Amino acid sequence: MAMRWPPTPFTADDYAARMARATRVALDAGLDGVLVAPGPDLVWLTGYEPTALTERLTLLILSPRVRPTLLVPTLERPDAEAAVLTIGVGVVDWGDDADPYRAASAFLRPGGTFGISDATWASHLLGLQDRLPSTVYLGFGECLPMLRAVKDDGELYRLTAAGAAADATYTEIAELPFAGRREYDVAADLARLLREFGHDRVDFTIVGSGPNGADPHHEAGDRVIEPGDAVVLDFGGLMHGYGSDTTRTVSVGEPDPEVRKVHEIVRVAQQTAFEAVRPGVACGEIDRIARAVIADAGYGEWFIHRTGHGIGVTTHEPPYLTPGEPQPLRPGMCFSIEPGVYLPGRFGVRIEDIVTVTDRGARRLNNTDHALRVVG
Amino acid sequence: MAMRWPPTPFTADDYAARMARATRVALDAGLDGVLVAPGPDLVWLTGYEPTALTERLTLLILSPRVRPTLLVPTLERPDAEAAVLTIGVGVVDWGDDADPYRAASAFLRPGGTFGISDATWASHLLGLQDRLPSTVYLGFGECLPMLRAVKDDGELYRLTAAGAAADATYTEIAELPFAGRREYDVAADLARLLREFGHDRVDFTIVGSGPNGADPHHEAGDRVIEPGDAVVLDFGGLMHGYGSDTTRTVSVGEPDPEVRKVHEIVRVAQQTAFEAVRPGVACGEIDRIARAVIADAGYGEWFIHRTGHGIGVTTHEPPYLTPGEPQPLRPGMCFSIEPGVYLPGRFGVRIEDIVTVTDRGARRLNNTDHALRVVG
Repeated sequence: MAMRWPPTPFTADDYAARMARATRVALDAGLDGVLVAPGPDLVWLTGYEPTALTERLTLLILSPRVRPTLLVPTLERPDAEAAVLTIGVGVVDWGDDADPYRAASAFLRPGGTFGISDATWASHLLGLQDRLPSTVYLGFGECLPMLRAVKDDGELYRLTAAGAAADATYTEIAELPFAGRREYDVAADLARLLREFGHDRVDFTIVGSGPNGADPHHEAGDRVIEPGDAVVLDFGGLMHGYGSDTTRTVSVGEPDPEVRKVHEIVRVAQQTAFEAVRPGVACGEIDRIARAVIADAGYGEWFIHRTGHGIGVTTHEPPYLTPGEPQPLRPGMCFSIEPGVYLPGRFGVRIEDIVTVTDRGARRLNNTDHALRVVG
Repeated sequence: MAMRWPPTPFTADDYAARMARATRVALDAGLDGVLVAPGPDLVWLTGYEPTALTERLTLLILSPRVRPTLLVPTLERPDAEAAVLTIGVGVVDWGDDADPYRAASAFLRPGGTFGISDATWASHLLGLQDRLPSTVYLGFGECLPMLRAVKDDGELYRLTAAGAAADATYTEIAELPFAGRREYDVAADLARLLREFGHDRVDFTIVGSGPNGADPHHEAGDRVIEPGDAVVLDFGGLMHGYGSDTTRTVSVGEPDPEVRKVHEIVRVAQQTAFEAVRPGVACGEIDRIARAVIADAGYGEWFIHRTGHGIGVTTHEPPYLTPGEPQPLRPGMCFSIEPGVYLPGRFGVRIEDIVTVTDRGARRLNNTDHALRVVG
């Protein structure tokens, strides 16, 4: 896919469409509106990201019968206006001597039910609950989990580009030496390469060598990588505001027979789960399929995490591919498929691609080879 | 002050003392315990900072009759254990198929009242409220605002060093050319200098030239700085985990007479407020004193923010020097004193030092000259 870069910026229409969608989805869910504090939901809805995240309340209020309104601290009003006036959002400010929760409650219906963005600070939710005790608040993860799950074309374009940059990073890192270097040296190379291939932000560079690979969230340490090690490489970040996240497990020199065996099991689990993706299938079904392959091979108790997570303006978001999750897949959803096996004290294997649901199946946004790669 | 660098790491005893203090203060406040999600409070209490902040619940539970317990996602257990077992915290994990709020509620007394860290995600608070509806939750800002406000010697050492690095940055930047350069070029120099003088993280580099200086939270833009401009420079970040934050307003060439006049008013306001600091004085009184100087000079309506904020593991934290705030100052508290005047469309002036309360008065952690500096 030939990609034009940088991508066309999102337009006022894009943001207006997202705000309208949020309001409509909220209404469909029986809500009176939604409240959005700074964070990924606010960025997605308006493009606005305050300079600093502080204890001062900033809150977007979307409700069917009122104009979208952004409540901001007085001293952030100029920045907020510059960001959101053009997309049709009104700005209301509160000064340091005012009660921001009372200011917010003027926009909320007593006795109503409002969705509130997950990453809103608890202190702000408690302030709202205190001033308007008859109002019910529900987290987006509970009431609007799929708000950002289906990506539009501009978002898919960015995720595809971020995936390609992560692939280029893997291709380059596999050519570099591993044996004799410390994990964090390889991690530094991953970060450098992600940036070279266009990432604005590097979020994680996991290098789990030998026994460290058996800890799925081990980052990178001072362990010297040895010949014979399996090494889990899991890395990603943000590129033009959208995430990448891919994992390959490599072998330093000739693989241990059990590494080879486990790698093949995980490869088949990933492939089988990928082939099962199509609109209408439940997220939990994809998890079940990946898990069954690993369990049937006798390693079920060592697959200790969910099969995948959505990705967009954040690297972890709905839909989640967890056991029993009934949410059906829809075209345009983007998420990871990342089964793994972790043998404590020995090694770990994980293979992860971001995929997107198409009209009839799925397309990978990561396309490097799944075969066990031998590195030097 | 001759400073040894890097500072001695905080010890297991330091963290144990902080956890004991939190539990005791909570008990004094009539609480049954405190709940702490990842963020500055968790770093301060335990030194633990999860690799990534995600939707998965991590929660420290401190309560008088139980061992300090950290509830973590299963796949973060190894990292958590490495971080907190040595300081006497037990680790309990929950898997992706478990309900983390039910797991947490096993540690909470039904009908009890618990403090919860301000930056905890609203979704987590809602989950706890749902599973244990008879339990009352209060934000730290409400129930334990001064938990981290009085700094211990190790903290004061770090804040003093961060202040000295910010001072060195100002000294160097004032020697560089301003006229003809864009604001973000000067901002880039500020960031570079902060890092050169030891900062691990740069949080803000405000360069507000001419009319941009009248927006207190303007960061830095593409405006070309002109001879005659007043330029607000407000910058800081973290050094060994503790914050710096200082502001000076400079004049590019000969100052406009009103810039000179306003600068002198702000200088006197800052100095008068500083001299009023001593144990027992209310935070609101320091704000009142700074505000009175500016109001008496006829610029009261243009001082549009509070006089100061605490600083520590974050750059904005209690105590807040806001109008009417009754909190008395105590030895070891550290905060900014930063009065300002903002004339829309024309210019702004702000002078800011971090200060610490001593047994009989105050000591500045920023010590560069307050006179209006003429730059090139």
